[in-house]
Amino acid sequence: MKTVSEHLGAVLDLLQPLPPLDVVLHDAVGCVLAEDILAGGDLPERDLAGIDGYAVISRDVDGATPQSQVTLRVLDEIVAGSVDDHRVVTGSALKVASGAPLPGGADAVVPLEDTDGGRAAVHVRSGPAPGSFVRRQGEDLRTGEIAIAAGERIGARQIALLAALGRARVAVHPRPRVVLVSVGDELTEPGRRASAGQVFDANGHALATAVQDAGGATFRVAAVPDERTRLAETLEDQLVRADVVITTGGLSYGGNDTVKEVLAQLGQVRFDNVAIAPGRQFGVGVIGGQTSGTSTPVICLPGDPAAAQVGYEVFVRPALLAMAGHSERYRPTVPAAVTQAWDSPAGRRQFVPVTVLGSPDTGYRATPVGVPGRLSVSAMSRANGLAVVPEDVTTVEAGAQLHCLVLES
Amino acid sequence: MKTVSEHLGAVLDLLQPLPPLDVVLHDAVGCVLAEDILAGGDLPERDLAGIDGYAVISRDVDGATPQSQVTLRVLDEIVAGSVDDHRVVTGSALKVASGAPLPGGADAVVPLEDTDGGRAAVHVRSGPAPGSFVRRQGEDLRTGEIAIAAGERIGARQIALLAALGRARVAVHPRPRVVLVSVGDELTEPGRRASAGQVFDANGHALATAVQDAGGATFRVAAVPDERTRLAETLEDQLVRADVVITTGGLSYGGNDTVKEVLAQLGQVRFDNVAIAPGRQFGVGVIGGQTSGTSTPVICLPGDPAAAQVGYEVFVRPALLAMAGHSERYRPTVPAAVTQAWDSPAGRRQFVPVTVLGSPDTGYRATPVGVPGRLSVSAMSRANGLAVVPEDVTTVEAGAQLHCLVLES
Repeated sequence: MKTVSEHLGAVLDLLQPLPPLDVVLHDAVGCVLAEDILAGGDLPERDLAGIDGYAVISRDVDGATPQSQVTLRVLDEIVAGSVDDHRVVTGSALKVASGAPLPGGADAVVPLEDTDGGRAAVHVRSGPAPGSFVRRQGEDLRTGEIAIAAGERIGARQIALLAALGRARVAVHPRPRVVLVSVGDELTEPGRRASAGQVFDANGHALATAVQDAGGATFRVAAVPDERTRLAETLEDQLVRADVVITTGGLSYGGNDTVKEVLAQLGQVRFDNVAIAPGRQFGVGVIGGQTSGTSTPVICLPGDPAAAQVGYEVFVRPALLAMAGHSERYRPTVPAAVTQAWDSPAGRRQFVPVTVLGSPDTGYRATPVGVPGRLSVSAMSRANGLAVVPEDVTTVEAGAQLHCLVLES
Repeated sequence: MKTVSEHLGAVLDLLQPLPPLDVVLHDAVGCVLAEDILAGGDLPERDLAGIDGYAVISRDVDGATPQSQVTLRVLDEIVAGSVDDHRVVTGSALKVASGAPLPGGADAVVPLEDTDGGRAAVHVRSGPAPGSFVRRQGEDLRTGEIAIAAGERIGARQIALLAALGRARVAVHPRPRVVLVSVGDELTEPGRRASAGQVFDANGHALATAVQDAGGATFRVAAVPDERTRLAETLEDQLVRADVVITTGGLSYGGNDTVKEVLAQLGQVRFDNVAIAPGRQFGVGVIGGQTSGTSTPVICLPGDPAAAQVGYEVFVRPALLAMAGHSERYRPTVPAAVTQAWDSPAGRRQFVPVTVLGSPDTGYRATPVGVPGRLSVSAMSRANGLAVVPEDVTTVEAGAQLHCLVLES
């Protein structure tokens, strides 16, 4: 039997980081930067007024107070975006808007509220030090400096900087394009009336959401019955847009090994019993587009929705993050004392949905949601973590410390 | 001067939770559920085989071992989705696929690997207890039980449960539709060549990303110059699709108070100096669609991209989360010892971009990124937190403990 680590290793080996792609800013959000972004110019590109007020020569207003005001002649007004050349001379000031270019000669700005706001002449009530309320050319970034290094994740604050630098496109590791195929004669779409024996397809919807949470782009195919031709056609149709194909189900003997036989025709996919609970058989390999000549990684997960979710968390999510260039691939874990005892299958690493409560100060406690070992989509839905029972533990004692994966709420 | 708390209170008062809307599953992702979801039927809907194997009467195989095997007659095979009625009688078994309906009379399943897999007769090598490898009707959820309560956020695991229950639509608090308008003569689009005095519009792109991170749907309008007619037309055009309008810039005197005058024509928007740094003037109010007869909340932020980001974090993000029905509205904070001293403006709550490092065990340390008090989009980009300096602190001493908002990386 393959260990959890061995199977994860095989999946990580298969899903290598995607080559960089040049994308527009909007499509870069959530992606990992694949190039160092250098400042193409100084930021700000020249000295700017940092506040609405009057650009002055600080010497002229040295010692000004409400009781001892200084009067300056106002030469002109400058707004943000102005391109005119202005110059302050001794005894004069220029009215400036916040963000306006600082006129030549000026070395400080007196805030509007420290003046009478005069148009021809202004009474100044404070004497700012040289450099006050001035944003110096290049004080934020100098030409050629690294603004954002390759490997950083691009969020709102990085978008602000990229846009401020005038970048409309950047090279990123693109989102993995993931095609999801649920396999099973018994599956029907939510919203339809299920006839006797039919089960609603939960995996397609749930894994599409989970893949998007991990930054992937998903293409969900409506559930495919256990028919070799239909499945083969579906997979071949989808290869053109897939970086990865994930199948769920079709692995029980009752499915007549549809998935295994079809994938054997289309490529090399290895199936193993993996020492995990829940879950049993897992597949990993490549299928080739006969037309395209390329080969596409394929991951096969169990059909039960609770087992598929756990399999996704343990084997697929870290590999998708690696594919997208992330260095952080794993959920955070906390050590937690379990509040009840249960039996765990010998020789398998068991993942049990739990509610983790506590804090770093008080320590964490983990309470199983539902019956440990029982497959339950409602328990998965209510849990906020997965307690990890090592392979060699067959009885989890109440109070035992287990590592718990923290799922997003 | 208005305090930070007063202004936040005004924004929260204005942005009330949106009324529930019925949406398809895909559109419910990330939203807060606005109805209790009841199980419309038992889950599973009947007793099922929990593993590939043979459905048996447990009494028949009691005590079976590899050394003392029991032989049963195999009546038939049942796959998942089967609707035929099957029945096991003493001395017989039915071959079952995982997920297949458990035949009448059977009370356990012997896993395939504990048998010889026979077709007409099967040799059984284990004697599972009654109930073993059986998934009981309703063991996951019973008809009428609350599957997911109103108020829960819908993620991948909740989607799995909703789909498993056959729900294709649910009532949620919809995503707030946010229109973003950057105002300023000096603004130009990233990717264009900026002429002298022009500045790239960072706010539109950055706030669109930030709003999407908070679960909002954004409509970004290309930057609008400081022209009353253009701004008024733009705002009126956008009202039809906005739950909130956010403007940035256009508030300095140099912008000729474009934003204030236009908003005064279109509705009631109050502008105040708010005791925050960075930032100065902020607006909050409503503008009315004269055609629609409705009124739309509007929030006005500073034009500087670093100040706009801080203003968004402090005033807008919590209110957007409230609008979307979230009970958790605030960033997590950690107490951290600052590694250097700086001056903070008297009477203002200062937010300083910092790198927070540490752990609950060792404590956290916060180091300012860039120069505290200096507006910097590159500092915001490199920070992972915002240190909060209270209004009455004018000198932050090295080693002082400050609360730090933890930003997503």
